[in-house]
Amino acid sequence: MRVQVAIIGAGPSGLILGQLLAKAGIDAVILEAHTPDYVLGRIRAGVLEQVCIDLLDEAGVGERMHREGLPHHGIELLIGGLRHRIDLHGLTGGKQVMIYGQTELTRDLMDARAKAGLATVYEAKEVAVSGFDTDHPRVSYLKDGVRHEIACDFIAGCDGFHGVCRASVPKESLRTFERVYPFGWLGLLSDTPPVCDELIYAKSERGFALCSMRSHTRSRYYVQVPLTEKVENWSDDRFWDELRARLDAPAAAALVTGPSLEKSIAPLRSFVAEPMRFGRMFLAGDAAHIVPPTGAKGLNLAASDVRTLGHALIAFYGGSTDGIERYSERCLRRIWKAERFSWWMTNLLHRFPDTPPFEQRALEAELDYVVHSLAGRTTLAENYVGLPFED
Amino acid sequence: MRVQVAIIGAGPSGLILGQLLAKAGIDAVILEAHTPDYVLGRIRAGVLEQVCIDLLDEAGVGERMHREGLPHHGIELLIGGLRHRIDLHGLTGGKQVMIYGQTELTRDLMDARAKAGLATVYEAKEVAVSGFDTDHPRVSYLKDGVRHEIACDFIAGCDGFHGVCRASVPKESLRTFERVYPFGWLGLLSDTPPVCDELIYAKSERGFALCSMRSHTRSRYYVQVPLTEKVENWSDDRFWDELRARLDAPAAAALVTGPSLEKSIAPLRSFVAEPMRFGRMFLAGDAAHIVPPTGAKGLNLAASDVRTLGHALIAFYGGSTDGIERYSERCLRRIWKAERFSWWMTNLLHRFPDTPPFEQRALEAELDYVVHSLAGRTTLAENYVGLPFED
Repeated sequence: MRVQVAIIGAGPSGLILGQLLAKAGIDAVILEAHTPDYVLGRIRAGVLEQVCIDLLDEAGVGERMHREGLPHHGIELLIGGLRHRIDLHGLTGGKQVMIYGQTELTRDLMDARAKAGLATVYEAKEVAVSGFDTDHPRVSYLKDGVRHEIACDFIAGCDGFHGVCRASVPKESLRTFERVYPFGWLGLLSDTPPVCDELIYAKSERGFALCSMRSHTRSRYYVQVPLTEKVENWSDDRFWDELRARLDAPAAAALVTGPSLEKSIAPLRSFVAEPMRFGRMFLAGDAAHIVPPTGAKGLNLAASDVRTLGHALIAFYGGSTDGIERYSERCLRRIWKAERFSWWMTNLLHRFPDTPPFEQRALEAELDYVVHSLAGRTTLAENYVGLPFED
Repeated sequence: MRVQVAIIGAGPSGLILGQLLAKAGIDAVILEAHTPDYVLGRIRAGVLEQVCIDLLDEAGVGERMHREGLPHHGIELLIGGLRHRIDLHGLTGGKQVMIYGQTELTRDLMDARAKAGLATVYEAKEVAVSGFDTDHPRVSYLKDGVRHEIACDFIAGCDGFHGVCRASVPKESLRTFERVYPFGWLGLLSDTPPVCDELIYAKSERGFALCSMRSHTRSRYYVQVPLTEKVENWSDDRFWDELRARLDAPAAAALVTGPSLEKSIAPLRSFVAEPMRFGRMFLAGDAAHIVPPTGAKGLNLAASDVRTLGHALIAFYGGSTDGIERYSERCLRRIWKAERFSWWMTNLLHRFPDTPPFEQRALEAELDYVVHSLAGRTTLAENYVGLPFED
């Protein structure tokens, strides 16, 4: 088999890239280790930046998102019992975010791909990439016990943090940066109406909490927990009690509880691999970088990577190599700003077990400054809705 | 002897407070452990915020400052060889800073005090404060071998970081916050024209450098050095070479060198003591808090403390105790924001020997963000010129 681009991974990054390339008439295949149901079952992000919204429109899959998604014009910060609204729309000259679950987005992308009859191989096992330091990269995989080989021009590594693409790069060619946080997020998904029209980011003496949502009838809540916590120790009732204790009285009173559809603990991590291009293989999304979810940047960064990659590949087949040559540098500048923002927002809103007293007070002063200064709120807002692309 | 207010310390804080009280007809004495020449010999800050400028006018000592001081509308950040101007004036709706050496300011205050015939006791040794938890505080001191006693309504501790006032507070009544930095500033004062019309804050691979000034003919330069450095190891030539190596080509070429008038290494420290009022004794300025000099906040914070204290004492003698009761809380909110800013600017612009790689990249991304975002530059500018007073 021979294609122009072999995409490894059928998560949102791989699927969006697939759409962009297909629209440009570039021949691509997507290999995915898991089943479609497994991919759809992963509960992930739900806040889309304008960049991501625009990209889904460009890829031709934005129709249901626009119909069912919830545009949000602001977020609420709840700090020591006081609410401070960050007017995203007003502070950024009219930008907003869209609440639309990653699961829904993935389903739209899968449907579009199936409808167009584009090649996707699910349950492709033992994927191996090679030759990406030459002009003739190759990908092989096992499907139903048979090994297949693909010859291609480029490999797009959209296969996540644990994927094979980054793992196939020689150690000496890769520099990695990492920050592990001393806590995780215990998340609960339920078919209950959200406690507030907008997201509430709460910093309390008991730790951080986030009131998020997927729709008008489906809520997603999180509480910061020590890494040693086990999800088995958290009955739904215990979760709801802890969440309520971290909110202010109006939110605690308004909270509608119900049985959990899903409950899990996710560790928080910051991670970046540099560079993001190795000859004719590119890393995109979680394969190259992880952010803690506090800034809602994970899916959005993946989208901005594949936007840059899609345009670079289209330009290549149009005769210009500039895009692929500058892919890594262009992505990383934007990624590091988002990593910085996610790290900053995580530092500011969580309780750390070991923050020295001076730094603790300095962080409180920073929050006080940020919420009370127009410029301070603007920095938060413009990072939250997504910084503009730079060249 | 009996006075309404006993001020300990004849640095800028004590002298400004003395002027404010004298103008309001409140009887005060200032005790100072050193000689006038010793006080004048201390080479300190040179960047005044609008708050400080306004206060000196209010105290009636601003005349020479307005004549000889240099209003600055911006500062230059030099990062990795690229200049980024922070337009303080444009970003803050017309605010600015004034370059005027602390030595000159102190001289103006001393002259005004002498001219008005106000009581100042220099070389007051073994100062002791007592009874500040009652309505009858007392201060005693030794002068020319004779012990003197002062009965007063209030004690103003303007006696610096090593002063007796904070040291006289029972340990259990005081909470302190501290951050010591793993480097110092080697400073050189010379009668040479400044290398640039505005201050240059330089971050280079070799470490931080600051090109500051006191006038059109007197320059003050600093280079970051390890705490283990000894000033004896730094000839003037070595200093100039090191400074030049941390600047860009235009600044390095324009630098006019000359013999040092003063050369010394100062450690960098962040420190806050809480609260700042103990019954009828108040701490102000360095007696209560220290900032690293990066944000040019030390003298300005002292000025804002004595502004708040002066107004509180004047209100007290006018019949309202609200000002003295809220003194500590009012000061600390502003102080912590300035501590946060000074810490942030120090972290951003210096090389730390032990910054983990992720944090290092995140700081670089933050600098990249701050200088390229209007909101980011505005946060820097509005903090640098001084945040507005809040109630």
